[in-house]
Amino acid sequence: MSHHYSYSGDRFTVVYDITGNEAVAQTKAEGICIEQTIEFPADLVTSEEIKRHVIGQLKNLQKINEDLYQAEISFAVEVTGFEIIQLLNVLFGNTSIQTGIKVVSVNLPESLLKAFRGPRFGREGLRKLLNVSDRPLLCSALKPMGLSTEELANIVYDYALGGIDIIKDDHGFANQSFSPFEERVAKCSEAVFKANQITGKKSIYLPNIPGPTMDIFEKAEYAKQNGAGGLLVSPGLLGFDVLRALADNDDLRFPIMSHPAMLGSFTSSKNHGFSHYFLYGTLPRLAGADMVVFPVFGGRFSFSVDECQEIINGCSDDLGQLSPVLPVPAGGMRVDRVPEMIDFFGNDMVLLIGGNLQRGGTLVENCKRFLDLVRENSR
Amino acid sequence: MSHHYSYSGDRFTVVYDITGNEAVAQTKAEGICIEQTIEFPADLVTSEEIKRHVIGQLKNLQKINEDLYQAEISFAVEVTGFEIIQLLNVLFGNTSIQTGIKVVSVNLPESLLKAFRGPRFGREGLRKLLNVSDRPLLCSALKPMGLSTEELANIVYDYALGGIDIIKDDHGFANQSFSPFEERVAKCSEAVFKANQITGKKSIYLPNIPGPTMDIFEKAEYAKQNGAGGLLVSPGLLGFDVLRALADNDDLRFPIMSHPAMLGSFTSSKNHGFSHYFLYGTLPRLAGADMVVFPVFGGRFSFSVDECQEIINGCSDDLGQLSPVLPVPAGGMRVDRVPEMIDFFGNDMVLLIGGNLQRGGTLVENCKRFLDLVRENSR
Repeated sequence: MSHHYSYSGDRFTVVYDITGNEAVAQTKAEGICIEQTIEFPADLVTSEEIKRHVIGQLKNLQKINEDLYQAEISFAVEVTGFEIIQLLNVLFGNTSIQTGIKVVSVNLPESLLKAFRGPRFGREGLRKLLNVSDRPLLCSALKPMGLSTEELANIVYDYALGGIDIIKDDHGFANQSFSPFEERVAKCSEAVFKANQITGKKSIYLPNIPGPTMDIFEKAEYAKQNGAGGLLVSPGLLGFDVLRALADNDDLRFPIMSHPAMLGSFTSSKNHGFSHYFLYGTLPRLAGADMVVFPVFGGRFSFSVDECQEIINGCSDDLGQLSPVLPVPAGGMRVDRVPEMIDFFGNDMVLLIGGNLQRGGTLVENCKRFLDLVRENSR
Repeated sequence: MSHHYSYSGDRFTVVYDITGNEAVAQTKAEGICIEQTIEFPADLVTSEEIKRHVIGQLKNLQKINEDLYQAEISFAVEVTGFEIIQLLNVLFGNTSIQTGIKVVSVNLPESLLKAFRGPRFGREGLRKLLNVSDRPLLCSALKPMGLSTEELANIVYDYALGGIDIIKDDHGFANQSFSPFEERVAKCSEAVFKANQITGKKSIYLPNIPGPTMDIFEKAEYAKQNGAGGLLVSPGLLGFDVLRALADNDDLRFPIMSHPAMLGSFTSSKNHGFSHYFLYGTLPRLAGADMVVFPVFGGRFSFSVDECQEIINGCSDDLGQLSPVLPVPAGGMRVDRVPEMIDFFGNDMVLLIGGNLQRGGTLVENCKRFLDLVRENSR
């Protein structure tokens, strides 16, 4: 049978770390070319176009050490259908079930990159929106789960009064009956509005988008109409295309903060999954996040200094027309770590402190101390 | 501040495997209680209700060996908001970013279970739908990616003529321009219809649901109107709540086959992620899958015999009102393995053979041989 589809010839490249000796690495790399595309015995393929274009191509296999090789594999842009879900599927769908293979980075040609709007605000857009040019942005999370909406709104008010730029729901705030989404969004947005009138600042409140997935636009529109200033989204729970849909929506025009819930298994192994660079840099930028939360070194979680540096690079390296975005190191951050954090991340970051702001003194005082410390240490 | 929300007292239990000595396991288990709920310093919580109800409770910590403990932790049903995304978040959201913690199983009370419709067809419903009572169901996948719609429809026709009960898209069939979703669904459904008229059977075609996520209902309705018989869904790419939304939709009433793409990282480590029992049994059943695809032992992938047995149990163990579902061992399955497969899995399974059916002979003959072999070996 003949086959008349015409391929552009444009290909994108994926760099994989492959654990094993040279023979193993070669076999695994050739396996990826098949597994991630035709998933079919290569010797049964009769179409020349499929052989030439659809099957992945191993461009290079480089030895890193005795037990680690780096493969560069290219795929036709057409196999992605120019959408993020199928792009992810080609990168790592079936391969995720195999061992000793890790996606390090991708190199996407313009024809594929332009399928993604990317961050609507990005690093510079956020600074403009919040009117903060010369220091890291300040963020805090509404905690703890189980408080009533009224209690939460009081905390939001104090955060905003104390100078926090971005106040987000804890990522576990869904639609629980002790503080339903609509009620919380309306009251917390109102609290920020009132505080802004006093401070003259532009603080914003970011509710967490809960399920069900198919109601996200309804929920987000409610948030917009009731004064919310952006959204918190967990792509590990909702899917990266849901983040993209919210970021891309021209009626919403919301800045989006991405949360790492349920993403941990993709970076839990040194030789499997995604690099921190890709998972917390490239991928959320493709999906349109403006800010990317991840657990910082020395906190409750376990990302290393090197992994955090990878994330900084992933958030800011050149990615075609897609803006750089702001890293949001978090996970047990404390006010006393502000100088250390700015020293490492620089000004282009969001400093997220949660529970620690509620320790000792009043909330407003603690926020002011946080802001003062950030101002003193900014570069 | 007072807090007047009234909790039911109903709690669900999660069993976690925790790697480490007793002191480490105790600390990690207590960490889960906090991390997965209030994510806030416990000593700062003033509300008695939050302490009594919202924070997770460590019910038991049992030694398995020197370096492995099993913790049983209970959570109030209310923290889930009675939806699958937040349930998953409570089970493993932030914990996914920590090391040495694995979700083994869950025990959900009726008040939480009844929030889930579960499989619409399940094991018995599928047998009734396809009119097959006394043998495993036969399935094949449309391959390879890159064929035109016409070529694919010809393959579908031969599969159905040869006696395959369920013909599914390869999971990488999205909306690529070499075979757009709508065109493929219409032509392939038509091919099955024609073959059914000849065979008198009830074979069905299951297109893969591609992104964008927010268009799934539109896509699925198109599939329904054009004669598709069910859907293939990859919850690792689209999210488990998207699978649930498709399964629950009363206008569609589609049987759903779940595909493991991108789920591999959750089971790639012995001491991290989800058990096979939970990820390929309990969870897809909660979300409403009727059939669960996973890579079988001895194929191209790496699940072990024990892990496959776990999946059989997860698909059939008691789960309140939720039906048992059919395991779909796959991943390089061959016709010559049919006796071995039936010996291990029994009759209550879907035998999925892809590329191997296209090797040697004609497609129709190979399918008939497959069906004959299944009939001969059924119990």
